[in-house]
Amino acid sequence: MSALTVALDMMGGDNGPPVTVPASVQALSLMPQLHLVLIGDLTRCQSLLSRHGLLHHPRVRLLHASQVVSMGDKPIHALRHLKDSSMRLALDLVKQGEADACVSAGNTGALMAMAKCVLKSLPGVDRPALVKGLPHIQGGRTYLLDLGANVSCDADSLLQFAVMGAVVAERVEGISHPRVALLNVGEEEIKGNDLVRHSAELLGQCPALNYIGYVEGNELFTGKADVIVCDGFVGNVALKTAEGVARMMGRMVGVEGAKRTFLGQLASFLFKRRFKTLNPDQYNGASLLGLRGIVVKSHGSANERALCHAIMLAAEEVKAQLPAQIADRLETVLSDRDQ
Amino acid sequence: MSALTVALDMMGGDNGPPVTVPASVQALSLMPQLHLVLIGDLTRCQSLLSRHGLLHHPRVRLLHASQVVSMGDKPIHALRHLKDSSMRLALDLVKQGEADACVSAGNTGALMAMAKCVLKSLPGVDRPALVKGLPHIQGGRTYLLDLGANVSCDADSLLQFAVMGAVVAERVEGISHPRVALLNVGEEEIKGNDLVRHSAELLGQCPALNYIGYVEGNELFTGKADVIVCDGFVGNVALKTAEGVARMMGRMVGVEGAKRTFLGQLASFLFKRRFKTLNPDQYNGASLLGLRGIVVKSHGSANERALCHAIMLAAEEVKAQLPAQIADRLETVLSDRDQ
Repeated sequence: MSALTVALDMMGGDNGPPVTVPASVQALSLMPQLHLVLIGDLTRCQSLLSRHGLLHHPRVRLLHASQVVSMGDKPIHALRHLKDSSMRLALDLVKQGEADACVSAGNTGALMAMAKCVLKSLPGVDRPALVKGLPHIQGGRTYLLDLGANVSCDADSLLQFAVMGAVVAERVEGISHPRVALLNVGEEEIKGNDLVRHSAELLGQCPALNYIGYVEGNELFTGKADVIVCDGFVGNVALKTAEGVARMMGRMVGVEGAKRTFLGQLASFLFKRRFKTLNPDQYNGASLLGLRGIVVKSHGSANERALCHAIMLAAEEVKAQLPAQIADRLETVLSDRDQ
Repeated sequence: MSALTVALDMMGGDNGPPVTVPASVQALSLMPQLHLVLIGDLTRCQSLLSRHGLLHHPRVRLLHASQVVSMGDKPIHALRHLKDSSMRLALDLVKQGEADACVSAGNTGALMAMAKCVLKSLPGVDRPALVKGLPHIQGGRTYLLDLGANVSCDADSLLQFAVMGAVVAERVEGISHPRVALLNVGEEEIKGNDLVRHSAELLGQCPALNYIGYVEGNELFTGKADVIVCDGFVGNVALKTAEGVARMMGRMVGVEGAKRTFLGQLASFLFKRRFKTLNPDQYNGASLLGLRGIVVKSHGSANERALCHAIMLAAEEVKAQLPAQIADRLETVLSDRDQ
């Protein structure tokens, strides 16, 4: 397998280099063909990089960035004034072809704005979308998009999201003819708002899609569909609601804290034992689809293992040649529609 | 305490009379001032009613209905052609003042359509909304609305939802100055779509509301707000997503089925023990707010205890004089705005 290069925003995330540097070591050891460009404040990171043997690693290039995008920075500020930030330089490397993909755990809004500006959309894509593979009870993943890149969408955008999601399910997850559904408030045809009903018409008329109809919020995790499409407002609320419920239930059975009693400890043990297939570290990384380049957003609070997973996800998307595959599929869909 | 009368659609729900009849007995025994009008196919229900001592109960009136709204009936069909259904007669009794509230576990769409048509909206209410009190980790409830009565809304509607939700939190839950928030994709002012940002302006300018800003999906269950407002599409997806995650996690730790192993049994036991405050039976019942009468929708799959809870909820809303309180508050809000 030929080499592939991922640019990593070393400064991003709640914890920055203390997480991104060891995560890089993990990823390099897991994937022999992986090369990394680590971008950040090299003066500040020197001892950390040295301690982890990355100062002169044969598969690591270090790139100094004089600026950092903070979590509080507005996207427009980051876009205009933080052109030497670690996040921006990571995107620039992808644009220039010096990296095949980039990963950041930093400010989501800034990353999306910069990525759109630097990398530009693929032909046929009006708006890039954020997608994530969520675990379902049958043991696989359901790809949900958009997760917040677009807070208001039209039906053409939802059709594009459907095509992009289907390509990811096929090429990254290895599902042939992935089942694509629209998220709605009921399963009957008459249900929903104008956007969903109009989108249903477009998806139903698209021969390149295996469109199976509507699903409701309680079916996000049942494995009924491989790809579930919605606007970014709805997708963001659904994903965060799911995270909130899982966290609440985890707390109640003692996964986080509250392990003072024997029963609490036992519950925690059993919970973890049962939930190992649901380890959130294994689901870290949302991909910004529809750009002329691969951009993976890690959760800001990711630990080493979770960030390593986001790097591996970016590498998988490089192997799957995701942007080219999406462009091809969209071209087919659009030419089918024009006929 | 003076008597109060609830009309119950005896035929509604997945199981109908075998659940609604014993639930009525439970509710009557729990609340001495409760009177019930049980509406349905009296021929079919006679032996069941007799077995439960309801044929000649001093606080029960029986009313025959020749029709039933089924789960598959379209709202418009129910509205036009099922005027002697148990659901419709229950609403008619509220309209005529013969009952103070009605409860149904039947077809949600038909109930909402019929309720709006029969009972009409309160002055100041453009659209009634469906609300439910959800458990949060601090032990109280957060009222989420709209849950699907309106799949597309404007900012004026969201302001009305906020006022109605606040009245419920105050009068039913006993919270003074309930904290009201808007559900959004981020907490910063610039986040969200036009609807949410415009609604934030209206809510922020309303002196009758304790508006605290935006909350995200992961904060639905943290107790950060007492009332969370969103359009019915988003609210429906959020609620069903939460139910879906809870069911998935419950299954994984063995609450439903999969108790074949010792560990599974133990996990199930611990889970139930910890979760007793989260018993879904105690959270059954969504209220349709903004009408000239009280309408409570029970979950279709409710068991006896859960349906009994929905009846008790309707009775609480009668005691709280919810429609009059909502009308008063809305009048204040609207006159404040006009000044």
